[in-house]
Amino acid sequence: MTAVTDPRIQRLAELAVAGGANVQPGQVVSVGGRPGYEELVRAIAVAAYQRGARFVDVSWFDPHVKLARLEHAAEDTLDWVPPWMGQRVLAIGEMAGANIGITGPTAPGLFDAVDPARAGRDRLPSVREGMEVIMGAQVNWTVVPCPNPGWAGLVFPDLPADAALARLWDEVAHVCRLEADDPVAAWRARAAELTATAEALTARRLSALRFVGPGTDLTVGLFPGSRWLGGEEHRRDGLLHLPNIPTEEVFTTPDPERTEGVVTSTMPLDVAGTVIRGLRVRFAGGRAVEITAESGAEVLRARAAVDEGAARLGEVALVDGSGRIGPLGTVFYDTLLDENAASHIALGAAYPAGVAEGPDRDRANTSEIHIDFMIGGPEVTVFGVDAEGRESVLLRDGAWAG
Amino acid sequence: MTAVTDPRIQRLAELAVAGGANVQPGQVVSVGGRPGYEELVRAIAVAAYQRGARFVDVSWFDPHVKLARLEHAAEDTLDWVPPWMGQRVLAIGEMAGANIGITGPTAPGLFDAVDPARAGRDRLPSVREGMEVIMGAQVNWTVVPCPNPGWAGLVFPDLPADAALARLWDEVAHVCRLEADDPVAAWRARAAELTATAEALTARRLSALRFVGPGTDLTVGLFPGSRWLGGEEHRRDGLLHLPNIPTEEVFTTPDPERTEGVVTSTMPLDVAGTVIRGLRVRFAGGRAVEITAESGAEVLRARAAVDEGAARLGEVALVDGSGRIGPLGTVFYDTLLDENAASHIALGAAYPAGVAEGPDRDRANTSEIHIDFMIGGPEVTVFGVDAEGRESVLLRDGAWAG
Repeated sequence: MTAVTDPRIQRLAELAVAGGANVQPGQVVSVGGRPGYEELVRAIAVAAYQRGARFVDVSWFDPHVKLARLEHAAEDTLDWVPPWMGQRVLAIGEMAGANIGITGPTAPGLFDAVDPARAGRDRLPSVREGMEVIMGAQVNWTVVPCPNPGWAGLVFPDLPADAALARLWDEVAHVCRLEADDPVAAWRARAAELTATAEALTARRLSALRFVGPGTDLTVGLFPGSRWLGGEEHRRDGLLHLPNIPTEEVFTTPDPERTEGVVTSTMPLDVAGTVIRGLRVRFAGGRAVEITAESGAEVLRARAAVDEGAARLGEVALVDGSGRIGPLGTVFYDTLLDENAASHIALGAAYPAGVAEGPDRDRANTSEIHIDFMIGGPEVTVFGVDAEGRESVLLRDGAWAG
Repeated sequence: MTAVTDPRIQRLAELAVAGGANVQPGQVVSVGGRPGYEELVRAIAVAAYQRGARFVDVSWFDPHVKLARLEHAAEDTLDWVPPWMGQRVLAIGEMAGANIGITGPTAPGLFDAVDPARAGRDRLPSVREGMEVIMGAQVNWTVVPCPNPGWAGLVFPDLPADAALARLWDEVAHVCRLEADDPVAAWRARAAELTATAEALTARRLSALRFVGPGTDLTVGLFPGSRWLGGEEHRRDGLLHLPNIPTEEVFTTPDPERTEGVVTSTMPLDVAGTVIRGLRVRFAGGRAVEITAESGAEVLRARAAVDEGAARLGEVALVDGSGRIGPLGTVFYDTLLDENAASHIALGAAYPAGVAEGPDRDRANTSEIHIDFMIGGPEVTVFGVDAEGRESVLLRDGAWAG
C-alpha cells in the first residue's frame, strides 16, 4: 500500500494526540492502524512520545487477512475472537490509557463478493470489550480520519489517483481545521459552541424528536433525563477529550423503547467494508423490526441481531448547517465524516453521559454494537415534541428555529 | 511500503504453512508481520485457512513506530513491555497453536542514529514468553524469509531497485527450493538428510568442538548427553515441524560453562536493526567476557547483559558446504539465511531437545535471548575433541572429514 506523505499529516497527528485524545504524560496510548495509515500512525507515535507517553501500542488490522478468513475459514469459526484481543482492551482501560482510532476506508469493495451472512459473523477488529471501555469512560479517546489512495478513489472516482488524493486531503484538512494557527485551540472553541447548543437543548426537556422528510416519518422518544452533549467528553475521572475530530453534532441518549415509524437513510453507510445504499428501517416499540436496502441490508440485519440492544437506538444526533462537512456536499463513505454532515441515529450502545444518572440511565440501551446512520439533510425537518405532545420546529433547511 | 508481488510468494506461503509449521485443522496460527511483508502474510493467511486453521492472528510490528519510541520516549520507560503481548504468546502456547515467523530486514539502517544503549533496552517485538513457548516445544513453528525492497537494497546495493528485488527473489526461491515440483517433499527429504548427519555426530559422543581460523581459536564444551539435531523438530506432543526454511545446519546444546577462547565473526550480524560488523568475542569459563566490534558492539553487549544466561552459549551449529546458501557467496544480513551459510554459535537460550533429559538438560543454558552469530567458513577448521582430549578434523574447507 502506498504510503501517505502529505505534509499536513504531522499537524493531523499532533491534533489527534493533543487536541483529540489529550494524551497525558506516562500514558499507554492505543492506536488502531491499518495498511494505508502507516504514515499517520508513525506521526501519532512521535507526537505521543513527545508528549510523554509511556508506550504507543498499535493494534494493526489488515482487511485482506480478514478477507482470507471470510473466504476460506469454516463457517462455525467465523465468530471466534481471540481472547487476548479483549484482554488487551480491558487492560488499557484499567490503566486509564488513551485510545486513538483512525477511520477512512483503505480497501473499498474488498468484501463485495463475500456472502453477507458470513461477513456479518466476523465483527473484528471491533471487540465487545472495546464498547465497554469507551462507554465506561475509562479512556481518553478520539477518532480522526486518514486520507489514503483507496479512500480517495472511492470518494472521487472521476479524478486521476493523485488528484483524488490531493482533493481528499484538502477536504479532510478543511473539515479538521488544520489550517488554523492553532488547531487544538480551534477545536476547543468549536467544542465549546457545540456544548452551548447542547445545553440549550437539554433545557427544553423535550419528550421526543420527530423527523419528517422523503421516506421518513420517525418519532424518537427521549427520557425525562436525556442530556444533550456535543464536542467535549470527559473520562470518568474528569479528563477532557474530544472523541471525534471533526465533530459538528449534538447528541443525546433516547429511550430505547419509544422509537416509532419509518426512516430512510439520506447517505450511504459503510459497515465494515460493505456499503449499504438506500437503507430503510421501520421501528415499532423501539425495535428495528424491518431493515431493507438497495444493497447490503443483510450485513446491517446481522449486526442488529447480535444482542437484545442491537436493534434499538442508543443515540440520536442533530447536525445543523454551520459545520464544515455538510456544505462540501461530499459523500465520504466514512461515518466519522458523514455523520457530521447530517442528523443521524445509531443502533446499539448508548453513551451513558447522554442521560442523567438514576432510573433513566439504567434503562439506556446497551449492546456490543454502535452503528450510526444518517437520516437528516435539508429536506428533513426535525420537530421537538414537548411533554404535552406539542410539536415545534427545531431544525429546518439546516438551521435552528428561533 | 511497496507491496511485494512476485508470483512465487504463494508457493513460499504454502511451504511455510504446510511444510514448515505443518498447520493442523482447527489451529490458531500466529504470524509475525511487518510493513513490507503484507503480501506474504496475506498469502499465508489464505494457505492456513485453506488447511483448516481456526484463526490467523497477525502480530504486526512496525519498526518506524519503535523508532519513534527510541528517539522520544523517556529512558526509564524503554524496557516496559505491555503485559498483553506476553499473555497472547502464552495463550497461543497453551492452546498448542502454530507460529509462523518471517524474517528479512525491511528498513535497514533505521536505527543507525539511535543511541545503542537506548536501543538495547527495547527488545520488542521479542518478548520473554516467546522464548518460553518455543523452547518448551508448545507450538509447531517455522520461520521463512520474505524478500522486500528494503532488504534487496541492502543485499545488492549496486543494482537498480527492481533488479535488486528480482535477484533477491531468485536467491531466496533457490535456497527455499521453491522450484521443486513439491517443495514440501523436497524439504522433508533435506531435513531427513540433516537428521542422519546429526545422528552420526551424536554417536561420536564428542567432549568438545574446537574452531580454528583467522582471529578464532575457540573451544566449545559439550555435555555427555549433547544430542545433535537438524532439519526436523517435534512439538512436545510429537507433531513434526520444520522450524527454519531454509535450513542447512546441524546443531546441539553445549555446556554453558565450558566455552574458552576467542572467536571472530565471519559475517555481519543484524540485531534488531543494528548491523554488527567485525565482531570479536572472548569467552572464559563459558561466559562472553569481552565483546568488541568495528560497529554495533554496544547493542550486543546490552543483549548479553539482560540475564545470567545471556552471555553464555545455548547453541553450537555446523554447516557444511552441501547447502545452497554458502555457495551463493551472498551476505544476506539476515540470520535465518546467513546462519545456514556457515557454522555458528548462539548466545542465550538452549533448545532443550539438544541434550538428553536428566542432569545435563537441567544445566542447559536459559535466557530470554537467543542470538546466533556466524563463526564458520572455508578458512575455519572445526575439530572434534573426544573424551580423552584427542582432536580430529570434523569440517575442513566446508567438507566433512571421512
